[in-house]
Amino acid sequence: MTVTDNGVNVQALLDAREALKGAPEAAQFTWRATSKWDKGVHSTTTIENFYGLGAEQSHKSRTEFAADHPEVFAAEDNGITPIEYLLVGLASCLTAGVASVAQNRGVQLRSVTAVVEGNHDIRGILGDPDVRNGYNDIKVTFNIDADASKEDIEAIVAQSQKRSAVFDALTNPTDVTVEVA
Amino acid sequence: MTVTDNGVNVQALLDAREALKGAPEAAQFTWRATSKWDKGVHSTTTIENFYGLGAEQSHKSRTEFAADHPEVFAAEDNGITPIEYLLVGLASCLTAGVASVAQNRGVQLRSVTAVVEGNHDIRGILGDPDVRNGYNDIKVTFNIDADASKEDIEAIVAQSQKRSAVFDALTNPTDVTVEVA
Repeated sequence: MTVTDNGVNVQALLDAREALKGAPEAAQFTWRATSKWDKGVHSTTTIENFYGLGAEQSHKSRTEFAADHPEVFAAEDNGITPIEYLLVGLASCLTAGVASVAQNRGVQLRSVTAVVEGNHDIRGILGDPDVRNGYNDIKVTFNIDADASKEDIEAIVAQSQKRSAVFDALTNPTDVTVEVA
Repeated sequence: MTVTDNGVNVQALLDAREALKGAPEAAQFTWRATSKWDKGVHSTTTIENFYGLGAEQSHKSRTEFAADHPEVFAAEDNGITPIEYLLVGLASCLTAGVASVAQNRGVQLRSVTAVVEGNHDIRGILGDPDVRNGYNDIKVTFNIDADASKEDIEAIVAQSQKRSAVFDALTNPTDVTVEVA
């Protein structure tokens, strides 16, 4: 019998779930980003520290992300457009979930790719009050090669979606407060 | 009289708004990301092309984004956590809006930083059906040095929020379809 190894330590996650049942305060995380304006619509956002398990935590390294608008928006395209970062988060969250669920179900993955497309009517951000600012809709298409039937693969993707932090954040409203210090 | 220069070509944006009023089909953009599973919960997402103004468009360069989970989640921390990408998008979108609105109002910016904090109870993604998967709430705090009163700066931030694509995408629900090809 071949042991499934998708590189996910599922036992540690199941142990964490049990441990956090009795210590809900340790489950309260705060993720942080710090953005600095460069010029025009170009900014640089840094991610390094977060809070969780009752203490300050750090990523292994500090990462910087450039954002800008493309040249067709009369900008310099020094980085991807802010709204594209949502697609990065969605693709990577669902993919991580697919690997985790497959591991938990004993399904060996060989390859997983996801194409994410977000439809956006830019008249909203340009000031048209009748058009939404954000995406109209988003479509994710997975291509998965794995030791499993199409039905089992679809069930793995459905379970990933069901427990995805980013899928939830995009499909349900979140309270966002914006203040000037 | 000093000319305000925040590096935003506001006239081009105002012209685009007028032009797109008569050509709504050109305002339909599709932003795309392609994600490839690496190992465990580590994936790499690529952004390069998008559709808009009635044609295929490309960024000046192709960009790759690593996502993973931190070591406290029993992972390798080869990149930031998927849900952190939402904070990058939010910070950079609101910052771009501040620069654009300030330019339109003739307010010279000297520096703009934003700290974004997202509160997240991770019991949801670990499988607790009574806990939300996504953020409970998000707070953005701007520090802005500009040739304007506190009231004018607050009004600029409020207008940025009002027309922010990412603020809308996080505070309102979007239809997301996930399929297996």
